Amino acid sequence: MSSRVGLDVGGTKIEGVVLDAAGAITERRRVPTEAHRGYEHIVSAAARLAGELLNLAPKVASIGVGMPGAVSRRTGAVKNSNTQCLNNRDFPGDLARAIGRPVVAENDANCFALAEARLGAGRGHRVVFGVIMGTGVGGGIAIDGAVHAGPQRIAGEWGHHSIDPSGASCYCGNRGCVETYLSGPALAARYASECGRTADADAAEVFAASRAGDSTAERVVIEFLDHFGRALANVIDILDPDVVVLGGGLSNVAELYGRGRAAVAERVFTDELLTPIVPNHLGDSAGVVGAALLADG
Amino acid sequence: MSSRVGLDVGGTKIEGVVLDAAGAITERRRVPTEAHRGYEHIVSAAARLAGELLNLAPKVASIGVGMPGAVSRRTGAVKNSNTQCLNNRDFPGDLARAIGRPVVAENDANCFALAEARLGAGRGHRVVFGVIMGTGVGGGIAIDGAVHAGPQRIAGEWGHHSIDPSGASCYCGNRGCVETYLSGPALAARYASECGRTADADAAEVFAASRAGDSTAERVVIEFLDHFGRALANVIDILDPDVVVLGGGLSNVAELYGRGRAAVAERVFTDELLTPIVPNHLGDSAGVVGAALLADG
Repeated sequence: MSSRVGLDVGGTKIEGVVLDAAGAITERRRVPTEAHRGYEHIVSAAARLAGELLNLAPKVASIGVGMPGAVSRRTGAVKNSNTQCLNNRDFPGDLARAIGRPVVAENDANCFALAEARLGAGRGHRVVFGVIMGTGVGGGIAIDGAVHAGPQRIAGEWGHHSIDPSGASCYCGNRGCVETYLSGPALAARYASECGRTADADAAEVFAASRAGDSTAERVVIEFLDHFGRALANVIDILDPDVVVLGGGLSNVAELYGRGRAAVAERVFTDELLTPIVPNHLGDSAGVVGAALLADG
Repeated sequence: MSSRVGLDVGGTKIEGVVLDAAGAITERRRVPTEAHRGYEHIVSAAARLAGELLNLAPKVASIGVGMPGAVSRRTGAVKNSNTQCLNNRDFPGDLARAIGRPVVAENDANCFALAEARLGAGRGHRVVFGVIMGTGVGGGIAIDGAVHAGPQRIAGEWGHHSIDPSGASCYCGNRGCVETYLSGPALAARYASECGRTADADAAEVFAASRAGDSTAERVVIEFLDHFGRALANVIDILDPDVVVLGGGLSNVAELYGRGRAAVAERVFTDELLTPIVPNHLGDSAGVVGAALLADG
């Protein structure tokens, strides 16, 4: 193993790192994405950042890129990215031409799972299910230290599996998707609606209010943890991963590991829940570190 | 690879095979399980059958056993078997003592997935999701030609993931489990109930009636295929396996690969469903062949 370079192309910023042979970050830089300036701008901003990092690690032969959405294995084309101008464009191919080196690109939640599997909370486990709970609900799977993305490149997208045929419509066209229950904004909106006002608290504040004895918040949190239990029990029934690693803004919520875990245990198809359900180790760095690990995965 | 011996311990019969080095069956024998005669009887019937097969393949060092339920990795104890007297007993350990050789045991649906992955419809695919649809709905996962069972040993149990919180109660304690919609008896019961009588047709007959223009059967089949689509789309959203191989009595139903597949495509979190959803190649032999493959897996 030698040095690696990875980029995380997010909606608001592009982040890049150089990892040393042991997987530690030796350099970390950020530039704004400025998606409103369009696709070509994002490609050149990413290429410029990659160029700076490659100057620091000149032996690196190829780089890894994490980005929202599903990246086609056949065409490089991006789908379902919330940075709209990336959709249906061959971003990895265009970036590779701009920097003169091969680019391996993956969904950012897959990068999260890969980093946690290789260097974080999933170490030592064969099948790692990485969960992102924040503005959206997503995830990724790493098997034997490599991303498993699948033919559709959607492995780990538990946020769009349906747990209720008469649930709310999701932007994806399905009904009752887990994301409509378990995203931060979904929780905040549910609380606001129960209070008869528009959303003015974020998810962390709803949990805080619940701990402080706000009975409406308590009720909404109980409901949230029940949905968490039903949704993650489905994942375990289907895949029985060796570990579940939580990331994203909500992964800091202590209730997920206590009452949330108990709700999973109640629903899962087994008497005793053995699966470790644990917070990530790499925090905000997991995505970009995972991107860097793609290049030799 | 040399010869292998495998047993499939089912509710009505115990089946055993010898496989040659290429994985072909060179000997196949059956004895009745006679579960009413109790646990010790099943152990000795299985041991006797294994002994006969080992006489034919004396170099075999250990044997594989497939059985319903989840087999604990820690204790060998069986859980959730429909052959009740096997539950909470260390069948693999007791059989090993009886035959004087190590026994590797796995859930029978996991054996199905393993056999199809190594020798059947899943060949050449990394992550194989094997589905059993018959009297019950189960499944198993093979990754890189080996069973992935998971900490709970329930990987592949999509039949007990819930698709509707207000669905029917399942024996497992959950509500709206896929098995309550997609088992053969569930389909037959639904048809009978729509006809205002007790179940007198099996699932194949309901499909046949639907093809013959029976409008009640058509309606029930449409509903069934919609449930199939929602349930399998969930599996693909969560795992995105490289292939889905169908086994069990209902795997012969042509509609699953046509309108059923279309229903999956409509629900799944992708524009274009690429996953092969295919019938098994090994038929009734898959379970016992997979059991034999366990010994060197």
